[in-house]
Amino acid sequence: MGSLQDGASDGKVITCKAAVAWGPGQPLVIEDVCVDPPQKMEVRVKILFTSICHTDLSAWQGETCVSSCAGYRIVESVGEGVTDMKEGDHVVPIFNGECGDCVYCKHDKTNLCEKFRVNPFNKVMVNDGKCRFSTRSDGKPIYHFLNTSTFSEYTVLDSACVVKIDPEAPLKKMTLLSCGVSTGLGGAWNTANVKPGSTVAVFGLGAVGLAAAEGARTRGASKIIGVDINSQKFIKGKAMGMTDFFNPTDLDKPVHEKIREITGGGVDYSFECAGNVDVLREAFLSTHDGWGLTVVLGVHPTPRMLPLHPMELFDGRRIVGSVFGDFKGKSQLPHFVKECTHGEVNLEEFITHELPFSQINEAFQLLIDGKSLRCLLHL
Amino acid sequence: MGSLQDGASDGKVITCKAAVAWGPGQPLVIEDVCVDPPQKMEVRVKILFTSICHTDLSAWQGETCVSSCAGYRIVESVGEGVTDMKEGDHVVPIFNGECGDCVYCKHDKTNLCEKFRVNPFNKVMVNDGKCRFSTRSDGKPIYHFLNTSTFSEYTVLDSACVVKIDPEAPLKKMTLLSCGVSTGLGGAWNTANVKPGSTVAVFGLGAVGLAAAEGARTRGASKIIGVDINSQKFIKGKAMGMTDFFNPTDLDKPVHEKIREITGGGVDYSFECAGNVDVLREAFLSTHDGWGLTVVLGVHPTPRMLPLHPMELFDGRRIVGSVFGDFKGKSQLPHFVKECTHGEVNLEEFITHELPFSQINEAFQLLIDGKSLRCLLHL
Repeated sequence: MGSLQDGASDGKVITCKAAVAWGPGQPLVIEDVCVDPPQKMEVRVKILFTSICHTDLSAWQGETCVSSCAGYRIVESVGEGVTDMKEGDHVVPIFNGECGDCVYCKHDKTNLCEKFRVNPFNKVMVNDGKCRFSTRSDGKPIYHFLNTSTFSEYTVLDSACVVKIDPEAPLKKMTLLSCGVSTGLGGAWNTANVKPGSTVAVFGLGAVGLAAAEGARTRGASKIIGVDINSQKFIKGKAMGMTDFFNPTDLDKPVHEKIREITGGGVDYSFECAGNVDVLREAFLSTHDGWGLTVVLGVHPTPRMLPLHPMELFDGRRIVGSVFGDFKGKSQLPHFVKECTHGEVNLEEFITHELPFSQINEAFQLLIDGKSLRCLLHL
Repeated sequence: MGSLQDGASDGKVITCKAAVAWGPGQPLVIEDVCVDPPQKMEVRVKILFTSICHTDLSAWQGETCVSSCAGYRIVESVGEGVTDMKEGDHVVPIFNGECGDCVYCKHDKTNLCEKFRVNPFNKVMVNDGKCRFSTRSDGKPIYHFLNTSTFSEYTVLDSACVVKIDPEAPLKKMTLLSCGVSTGLGGAWNTANVKPGSTVAVFGLGAVGLAAAEGARTRGASKIIGVDINSQKFIKGKAMGMTDFFNPTDLDKPVHEKIREITGGGVDYSFECAGNVDVLREAFLSTHDGWGLTVVLGVHPTPRMLPLHPMELFDGRRIVGSVFGDFKGKSQLPHFVKECTHGEVNLEEFITHELPFSQINEAFQLLIDGKSLRCLLHL
């Protein structure tokens, strides 16, 4: 195995441990894997912490790969052409990359890079269509996931999907920035652009929903209403500054009616973080007519279409989707890191568990059972 | 009958001619009607010109009322509390009123007044729930339509639905501002906020669609693509500065694919002015991913829901509805009138026919046959 100190691994294959899913829903197995050196515009990194999100969960239930989009890493070596990072730099991966050169990266209204935008179907490197992982035993390729693949001690990433951050920033918290927490916070900051004194409803109180609430709180929202069918989630929500809660299964009317009642006609912004189209309709109707905005952050793996009638758009309610909280990762995350470091954003509450990497299957179970927000895995 | 000169009709019932629809789809009949004096915060006006739009057409096919939302008038008398208008002022009616006092009127993001927003089901005055029209013969009430009712020599309106304009402004053109032309122009100016050099596609080339195109032209759009299943509409479109046309029935692939081909991935803005949900989907998909915006201006009298999948929102395309082009009528139309008067906006092309009021049924037929954009009726 290579070393970070002397650069002895530079340009060589590294052998290390990785958690591999060999089939849909099968337990992750710790295997010895070979990690190829980084090619042109790629970076090989050593991973210190990683965690699991619901997207990993969905992928694990359906795919064979080295998964996880979140992580905190140190650069081991860089490929040809990489000039903004070098060996030893502290970095976080992003599943929605930023090449900086395409028409999308140069447009101020989108963070969807032409080459490196999130694509759950892409399981190989963008440059050459190959994998950088293989089994040590027989050289069988192991697929990547969401441009990142962090359930391994070492991994190779496109440099467009790696953000260099201040080495003084708190390591563990920075692991959160790769994924759901950025998605929720950015949804409130960038997509909705929540105004001081405004009212907000968050549907689905997992990490993304709580991060959206935290984004609204840091922007000075006066009322932050949480909605979830698991009332246990309200404890965490309250600790994080949410002001009101509704469990729709306890109500005798649709939750949007209750929300309209306590907000004088509806909230200014709602966030759909449940990934359910019926919830999405409630989120839409819970906003104030005339100016309400619904931000869709949840993933909707359903054949069902939007349950909205075209005439309902004339009531002035709007709906938009947001990927990675509309952050342009490489340009904007470093500033976000500063806000987290200075304590303006409360990230403490998101790390509910910590486990060694070998207990990765327990970490998955905690998430399935709704017991954890983020379980940090130590490599 | 009252006179405008001596105020002799002030506070009295006026008898005059009106075109009344006595049943769904029945020919309009010119009748002697009684018009009550204006009550608190109301205005009685003498109508000089009026015209018909597709909304009138739909209403006529289903209702009994004194219809039409468009018109040009002179104030005959005002009711108690009206201070911003007086006898002899030149005014245009607006179907989407502005009281100026409600939470909506005070909000910068909406033009939907709490009391006077467009409501096709409201056929009486907002203040007291009564009609101001009745038949001369037997005093039977005749209903109002869309806050305006201009198929009559005199009519009574809520002052929130009447905009005082510069008496020097060209009378005939001003008739257009009440309805579809403001809707289309405002859709481009206010809702989409079309940027110089941007690309635009307009679906449905009636008055609203052509006005949206004119709005885009005056904002400096570099490409304005017209889409209609009636190729005859392209002649007018070309005269008004549209650059490209597609008739979907002539194509071997969906029109959004053709539009993406000639615009490097899609237009920046599309306008749905056809009132058809399948067209709406094409309009949505014809915009560029990442930043494309679809503005829905067409009325959709269908039980069908939006034919969009929630995951499609993550491609960064947005969709919004726009009522009366997001103009706050009383505050913003006077400025709009100036732009029209100075010739920045080309309104000439919209008036395709002129007829005496007695030939109102011919005017309806011209619209039904797709032969007219706006037929001006002289009273």
